[in-house]
Amino acid sequence: MSAEPPRYRRLADELAQLIHGGTLRPGDRLPSVRQTQASRGCSAATVFQAYHLLEARGLIRAAERSGYFVAPPAAPVTLPARDPQPVAVSELVFQLLGTGGHEVHAPLGSAFPSPELFPFDKLRSALAAGSRRLVPAELTQQLPGGHEGLRRQIALRYLRLGMSITPDEIVLTDGALEGLNLSLQLLTRPGDAVLIESPGFYAALQALERLGLRAVEVPTDPATGADLDAMAALIARHAPTACWLMTSFQNPLGGLMPADKKCALVELLERHAIPLIEDDVYAELQHDGPPPLPAKAYSTQGGVLHAGSFAKTLAPGWRVGWVAAGRFAPALRRAKLSQSLSGSWPAQAAIAHYLEGGDHERHLRSLRRALAAQQRALRAAVLQHFPAGTRVTQPQGGYFLWVELPAGHDSLVLHHAALKEGISLAPGPLFSAEGGFRHCLRLNSGQPWTPALAAAVERLGELIRLQAG
Amino acid sequence: MSAEPPRYRRLADELAQLIHGGTLRPGDRLPSVRQTQASRGCSAATVFQAYHLLEARGLIRAAERSGYFVAPPAAPVTLPARDPQPVAVSELVFQLLGTGGHEVHAPLGSAFPSPELFPFDKLRSALAAGSRRLVPAELTQQLPGGHEGLRRQIALRYLRLGMSITPDEIVLTDGALEGLNLSLQLLTRPGDAVLIESPGFYAALQALERLGLRAVEVPTDPATGADLDAMAALIARHAPTACWLMTSFQNPLGGLMPADKKCALVELLERHAIPLIEDDVYAELQHDGPPPLPAKAYSTQGGVLHAGSFAKTLAPGWRVGWVAAGRFAPALRRAKLSQSLSGSWPAQAAIAHYLEGGDHERHLRSLRRALAAQQRALRAAVLQHFPAGTRVTQPQGGYFLWVELPAGHDSLVLHHAALKEGISLAPGPLFSAEGGFRHCLRLNSGQPWTPALAAAVERLGELIRLQAG
Repeated sequence: MSAEPPRYRRLADELAQLIHGGTLRPGDRLPSVRQTQASRGCSAATVFQAYHLLEARGLIRAAERSGYFVAPPAAPVTLPARDPQPVAVSELVFQLLGTGGHEVHAPLGSAFPSPELFPFDKLRSALAAGSRRLVPAELTQQLPGGHEGLRRQIALRYLRLGMSITPDEIVLTDGALEGLNLSLQLLTRPGDAVLIESPGFYAALQALERLGLRAVEVPTDPATGADLDAMAALIARHAPTACWLMTSFQNPLGGLMPADKKCALVELLERHAIPLIEDDVYAELQHDGPPPLPAKAYSTQGGVLHAGSFAKTLAPGWRVGWVAAGRFAPALRRAKLSQSLSGSWPAQAAIAHYLEGGDHERHLRSLRRALAAQQRALRAAVLQHFPAGTRVTQPQGGYFLWVELPAGHDSLVLHHAALKEGISLAPGPLFSAEGGFRHCLRLNSGQPWTPALAAAVERLGELIRLQAG
Repeated sequence: MSAEPPRYRRLADELAQLIHGGTLRPGDRLPSVRQTQASRGCSAATVFQAYHLLEARGLIRAAERSGYFVAPPAAPVTLPARDPQPVAVSELVFQLLGTGGHEVHAPLGSAFPSPELFPFDKLRSALAAGSRRLVPAELTQQLPGGHEGLRRQIALRYLRLGMSITPDEIVLTDGALEGLNLSLQLLTRPGDAVLIESPGFYAALQALERLGLRAVEVPTDPATGADLDAMAALIARHAPTACWLMTSFQNPLGGLMPADKKCALVELLERHAIPLIEDDVYAELQHDGPPPLPAKAYSTQGGVLHAGSFAKTLAPGWRVGWVAAGRFAPALRRAKLSQSLSGSWPAQAAIAHYLEGGDHERHLRSLRRALAAQQRALRAAVLQHFPAGTRVTQPQGGYFLWVELPAGHDSLVLHHAALKEGISLAPGPLFSAEGGFRHCLRLNSGQPWTPALAAAVERLGELIRLQAG
């Protein structure tokens, strides 16, 4: 493991400094890849990676066939590109998640799949059945950790994957989100550095901001997840105290870290005694099969806190999630007790009852089929209606597409224009503390495909072309 | 308002320094009240107040008819008596709240009233009815703030008290506890000083500890709540950034701050722009009538965050609470979104449905009657079986009794001895960051009065007498 960041990163940082210092100014052309390759004595791949990183940060733009140019300053959301840096994105996130009073008919910016995909009738009867079994005394006696029957059902689901997790290791939380937040708070002190993905889930950025932590952004590949060489270098440089990642069907990219890479990730982190908060709420939504093994499966030292949820697969709004917290389980159980005592009993009891019923696998199969079909339809429409040069991911699970528009487009401007027409989207800068990804956006393929949605995608394409004009 | 703390406090601090510095040693006799009165030129009342404060801190003990002596060091839980001080009680709280593997048949240390007091049949049908009205799309659209119908019902309950609170000002949280924690986090930065009661609710101490805040403990009268003169002096000295109090049926003392004092409290805090986090979860449990007005009713600047809950009055374990957050409502709504998105929909919908049904007042009347009768029975048993010199509060609401044992008794030792016999209690040191109140304990009168409970109180009395021997 090198104490230095990888070469492309150093090259990118050097060029970024020239841009921030004003040596390179908006509109200036960067040296060509071949020139830089020669002058630096490095490979073309290194130069391309560096330029791609700068592009991702919104600092430079590729102009087709004519090279790379320094981008104009990113007006409404200039965030300083320090590294690691205190996080200040909450305000932006809340602004962009709001609808500004517009009625949204095409929720392509939503973080949720359509509620129509869930078995509400079965949930209703589970609620009635679960409530009949409510024993008043249980309510206050079984508090630590949450509903025992549900923790057992979750442990059984781990067992199907070949993982031995006891109900005692599981702490039920109000959705995975509370579990992730409590885990992060447990593991850090204000001012600490924390490894996160770039682009990554905005709620992680908000959590870092609220706790006064510094974000160490790890470059993340759209297909295979966080770059482990970069991570090793960042560990050596910044001594982070925790790492928060999504290893399967990452939000927003949709990438699935291959099994051997998950294993290497855990090995790297455990070697440095850095706990991993593994946000794994999309794992059950692998389109063509059962969930991939999480990184936690490769942990030997109990250092992985694995967070899951029923919010994306079964019962959105019920706020039933969990953390299998490894050696941190006793501390996390206490953190949960102090923060909000326990999860809500009726929802926990109902989901336990539903899982005991054995219908969940059938529901998951039909949900996965629906999500796969919807993704194909949305992806095809984007490729048809968006300008040439647009790149779209093709995740094997979950319900997000990550769209990179050709240089010169601005997803923040697009967001505001689209919202006026009732179309939402999630602009790229939501997903980074450094404010990059201006030419990127996340689209939600969790909505049933309808002519109205098709028309909305076509209209988005028109709005993007208007931008270029 | 004086910049100095009150005279008795200065005298107590001075004597405490002599004790901590070793000038006064365990067993040493303190100057008599008359001597001190003469040497300091102050009133006997001032000396008594100072000695009482030192006794409450566990530093001195009164020996009947022979004066005050320096107490032996408080072995297992010596916490330094700095002022204000970082908080480190969580470990103690969790130890003492646990049952150490013993089966508890007399839960006199519990924080909850007996679940048997709640209308579970009605709650079950409300759950079924509420779930039938679940509209899938609502689950993700009405998120900010929580279930709209429930917020309206809560606003209507404020209106009965003559308070105009809009549903928009209300943020639903997972019990009051999450709301209190999120409020505190919103209003403070690590290292800030926060005013709390002494003795006070241990969850507040835990929250301060988790957030790295310093506790400024305000002496609190068992009958009328926090001492406002002391508070004014502490504000001048420590510039606290928030205040967290229970103004009605305070935990653990049971005191009810009179209306004019609540008014003066708000005036004092708003004059210094210090937000008040008003934990008011027992207000509905006034034994002989409707809830007293909260301090928030006297606020003119929106600086009071008023937290309530259905956990103590209707549905323990369902985790449905709220904060009417005044001018902090938008910020708190965002904090809740970032921390755990929303409360659990089924519980919120069911309680909204139940409240619309109009049976709640009748249930509350019968609950209040039961709590009043149970308190009378428990109080009489304590006075009968505990040693002479025992003092017991007589709260007008809630379900806690605060018991002061005669000098020489130790509630921590008693706690461990009683737990072995299946009797729990809440020892005094749970309720202070300074580790005082060793001779005090909190008993729960929320349990139906039974011969078994009566026998448990009698046995507690025996254990106390054994201690003295």
